[in-house]
Amino acid sequence: MSVSRYTYLGPEGTFTEAALRTLPEAATRELVPMVSVPAALDAVRAGEAAAALVPIENSVEGGVTTTLDELAAGEPLMIYREVLLPIAFALLVRPGTQMADVKTVTGHPVAQPQVRKWLAAHLPEAVWESAASNADGARLVQEGRYDGAFAGEFAAATYGLEPLVTDIHDAQNAATRFVLAGRPARPAARTGADKTSVVLWLREDHPGALLELLQEYAARGVSMMRIESRPTGEGIGRYCFSVDCEGHLTDRRVGEVLMALKRVCREVRFLGSYPRADQVRPNVRPDTVDAAFTDAADWLTRCLDGRA
Amino acid sequence: MSVSRYTYLGPEGTFTEAALRTLPEAATRELVPMVSVPAALDAVRAGEAAAALVPIENSVEGGVTTTLDELAAGEPLMIYREVLLPIAFALLVRPGTQMADVKTVTGHPVAQPQVRKWLAAHLPEAVWESAASNADGARLVQEGRYDGAFAGEFAAATYGLEPLVTDIHDAQNAATRFVLAGRPARPAARTGADKTSVVLWLREDHPGALLELLQEYAARGVSMMRIESRPTGEGIGRYCFSVDCEGHLTDRRVGEVLMALKRVCREVRFLGSYPRADQVRPNVRPDTVDAAFTDAADWLTRCLDGRA
Amino acid sequence: MSVSRYTYLGPEGTFTEAALRTLPEAATRELVPMVSVPAALDAVRAGEAAAALVPIENSVEGGVTTTLDELAAGEPLMIYREVLLPIAFALLVRPGTQMADVKTVTGHPVAQPQVRKWLAAHLPEAVWESAASNADGARLVQEGRYDGAFAGEFAAATYGLEPLVTDIHDAQNAATRFVLAGRPARPAARTGADKTSVVLWLREDHPGALLELLQEYAARGVSMMRIESRPTGEGIGRYCFSVDCEGHLTDRRVGEVLMALKRVCREVRFLGSYPRADQVRPNVRPDTVDAAFTDAADWLTRCLDGRA
Amino acid sequence: MSVSRYTYLGPEGTFTEAALRTLPEAATRELVPMVSVPAALDAVRAGEAAAALVPIENSVEGGVTTTLDELAAGEPLMIYREVLLPIAFALLVRPGTQMADVKTVTGHPVAQPQVRKWLAAHLPEAVWESAASNADGARLVQEGRYDGAFAGEFAAATYGLEPLVTDIHDAQNAATRFVLAGRPARPAARTGADKTSVVLWLREDHPGALLELLQEYAARGVSMMRIESRPTGEGIGRYCFSVDCEGHLTDRRVGEVLMALKRVCREVRFLGSYPRADQVRPNVRPDTVDAAFTDAADWLTRCLDGRA
Repeated sequence: MSVSRYTYLGPEGTFTEAALRTLPEAATRELVPMVSVPAALDAVRAGEAAAALVPIENSVEGGVTTTLDELAAGEPLMIYREVLLPIAFALLVRPGTQMADVKTVTGHPVAQPQVRKWLAAHLPEAVWESAASNADGARLVQEGRYDGAFAGEFAAATYGLEPLVTDIHDAQNAATRFVLAGRPARPAARTGADKTSVVLWLREDHPGALLELLQEYAARGVSMMRIESRPTGEGIGRYCFSVDCEGHLTDRRVGEVLMALKRVCREVRFLGSYPRADQVRPNVRPDTVDAAFTDAADWLTRCLDGRA
Repeated sequence: MSVSRYTYLGPEGTFTEAALRTLPEAATRELVPMVSVPAALDAVRAGEAAAALVPIENSVEGGVTTTLDELAAGEPLMIYREVLLPIAFALLVRPGTQMADVKTVTGHPVAQPQVRKWLAAHLPEAVWESAASNADGARLVQEGRYDGAFAGEFAAATYGLEPLVTDIHDAQNAATRFVLAGRPARPAARTGADKTSVVLWLREDHPGALLELLQEYAARGVSMMRIESRPTGEGIGRYCFSVDCEGHLTDRRVGEVLMALKRVCREVRFLGSYPRADQVRPNVRPDTVDAAFTDAADWLTRCLDGRA
Repeated sequence: MSVSRYTYLGPEGTFTEAALRTLPEAATRELVPMVSVPAALDAVRAGEAAAALVPIENSVEGGVTTTLDELAAGEPLMIYREVLLPIAFALLVRPGTQMADVKTVTGHPVAQPQVRKWLAAHLPEAVWESAASNADGARLVQEGRYDGAFAGEFAAATYGLEPLVTDIHDAQNAATRFVLAGRPARPAARTGADKTSVVLWLREDHPGALLELLQEYAARGVSMMRIESRPTGEGIGRYCFSVDCEGHLTDRRVGEVLMALKRVCREVRFLGSYPRADQVRPNVRPDTVDAAFTDAADWLTRCLDGRA
Repeated sequence: MSVSRYTYLGPEGTFTEAALRTLPEAATRELVPMVSVPAALDAVRAGEAAAALVPIENSVEGGVTTTLDELAAGEPLMIYREVLLPIAFALLVRPGTQMADVKTVTGHPVAQPQVRKWLAAHLPEAVWESAASNADGARLVQEGRYDGAFAGEFAAATYGLEPLVTDIHDAQNAATRFVLAGRPARPAARTGADKTSVVLWLREDHPGALLELLQEYAARGVSMMRIESRPTGEGIGRYCFSVDCEGHLTDRRVGEVLMALKRVCREVRFLGSYPRADQVRPNVRPDTVDAAFTDAADWLTRCLDGRA
């Protein structure tokens, strides 16, 4: 495996590259843009890259289903890290362009709902046409096909453009979450502000099974942070669940939840424990701190020995 | 409102049109293809069409997020009916083309994962390129740009093509679910094999709120058939839930669940009760049949009157 | 029925009579002591008394099983009121007796564990012998059989004795709870600080049934205040449950709980809604106040009418 | 400690003695009747006896609260075994007495509700007076004070009486459950048909705590066989819970429940794992057999090692 290479969802100049560059180790890696999420991840599976950065969730558009499905199926991968990137577009123009000159704009289709209100307020007459990616949009402005492109401010230099307006985003707190995925390995050390991801397949013969899963988390005071259903491909009405919770595999409360899920589910795929990008530390109930589990195990041993 | 017009996700010759034509009333309606799901639904909101047929879920690709989000936001719409269409592609070719002649194929990007195995087995050398829609692919074959197009068999006639192979689908039981959405109205009469759809926003100050929602269903023996989380647009980690359950609004067990959800949730949007496309009648627990609720209410009245 | 007569668990001079005399209406009633709880209650069933005051629970001894079983079986009765009487014994002696003179003491067997520590501390040499009731003990002191009797201070005058020490009770907060039971009637008006009592028989074919019952309370934010299992008489392992919860039958959250129990249980016996003796008003969750239920019902009606 | 001595709730000739004699080892022990349950258990605590047999539950009368409270408080004891004795009274008379001669009968007060219907049917004119114990009743018949005594048939020989009628019991399946309690020790080996007993004190600051306890059992498929609330002595409304469940401490599902209870409860007292008297083996869900727990733990280890 080439430990010096990271792939990412390309092309260059997109938000994924910007997210990747927030990682300290990115400075010392060869960063290779790929045409698709599967391509980025398959390079990792094939040993051609050490890890791949791909988007997994967008606060406006929702889960990136390709990423979710790729992580759930095929040869196992593991999430090493997550990166949270605020969504903020710049309106990139050719040098010298003024607001009054902008008659046509472009960008990735996903960008459009995120700048719609801004457009209505500031460029109500401008005509939108979609581009294949935000970076492609910038290129088309460079070529003179459009007057402005919505893209990351960081893309301006690459295409010889200037940001006419920055920090454009209709929704407050809009962000995209990316994950750095690699081959299965010992999880990163616990930081105290961690997240654990799994994919769960319910037993078919079990109607209240989803409720039971959630109770396994709740009974141990482990907060679920995201749950997303995905079709298993076996027909309408058949789903698996992609779930993130707070905590690290080595937190006893989380380890106990995982073991319970393993028993109760048809299949569990462990996708990793890794530091939370927001660095928020959870409030842990007194009865679910590690010492509570250790004390209970000690007590059980004493009961077995007749010394309780 | 034009009661004689139904819109649908176009263009002509797609699976959505085929799904629409399975409805008896389609024969007497003007069927208008629209360029997008929002366009099809906005025509209904604007009173220009009586209803719109749009895809909502695919057993391979998952939820159609545009449809889910359109139904969850904006001016309320209601689901009148659902249509389940098995996914089965035909390989459409110009008359006279043989298998050996097929070097290039096309189709909607969504079609590709659903015929990938078939291609590997039967046309391992064929090159795939994506088209904007399955119907567009057929047109491109007509124009001679590709040798074959994966599309619905029904599209052959429209484009002067012939189905060389039919009933192609990698996954067993693959199907797409469509909904016919209109403006809010009195729900269709209960058939005994019904489905009820809602969108739920949890209270923010309530960590175990999702678990509580599921318990409201479970406590009344109402099976959840689909649950899908969608971002609320308020930032990463903020979701609403799109939920289908068995049963009709006028089933007492379902009405009680809805009222409980209304109390417990920040917001509930009722999306309709309508006949199940699969016509499966649920097994109802003896303690949750209508009579059980009626008897309990009668008994409570007797308690209040001192006659229990 | 003799509306002017109340029966109670006798004999005269016991705590039950003291509890009965705390009720304002006791002053205008004929108060008739009975030899047993069944006798006191059967007089009500036979129409010979308007109501009976009997002990139901003691904070040291637990539930008074005779009362629980009598209320659960036979012709229905209803709890009209509850009375809470702090347990505090006086050491009653013949006039002139000093502490140093007290060599032998008596009282009801139930009293003994409640004064044991006091005896050990203040009269470590005194010999205890049980009497049939606390009042009987007082009588035996009057007759010179014992030097002191533990009884209610109020019993002193009846037997020509003097309280040598008062307010004796080993446990802090020790109290006995009594109920005034009559024939089924319209429950007392809601005061805002109420209690509702039922007896529940689970369905036999339902292992997790007890858990389900508790969930019906919890889902509606209704706090359970007491749960007591009692044998049904059908064999070891067969129980019914006597349950008190906060709230009044006319509180929507309580009415909903009762209807759910009625559906889920094999049998429910409503024992009444009545003012709490401690006058504590519950904290009601915002989603379970009456208005939340009314709003939800209104909303359901609007859904049915196509106006939601 | 005298390993050769067992105490029991006396006097001789009661059902407790009969229950004790069903134990094989009773033949080689010195069996010592004691005047009360506390006396029988305190002899064990003091090291004067190896174990004590005391009644704990009666299918007609319910829990024997003295036994429950003695096991819950004071120096810990442990249940080694349980004995189930069908309740069947004999009417014991002096030799030569005929049915027509029986005008007065006696027995323990607890016996009376269990033979009431039989008396009404067969000796409607007979007058009942209570005795201090069933054995005492037999003695009083021997002395000529009554014509008949309801007692165990086995008591006849001791008092020179004859059983005139046998197998008298109003309720079907009526039985008393006894426990053999000793000092804490390594629990008896698992038989596959076992029972585990605990006493649980809830945390005060936790309203839904009882519900949570039951969920810990339910989540691991462990059936609760008995739950009994007992006052803690801290005031009305403060209870602990005496709970029996199926299974043995060394069953993984049971051990996991116990550890969870230990975490969640203010205090847990382990009262022992011992063979079920009814020898019924539980149906264990596939996800809660020992292997399911072992597999889950192995899998967690693999996850930690990066080999899942």
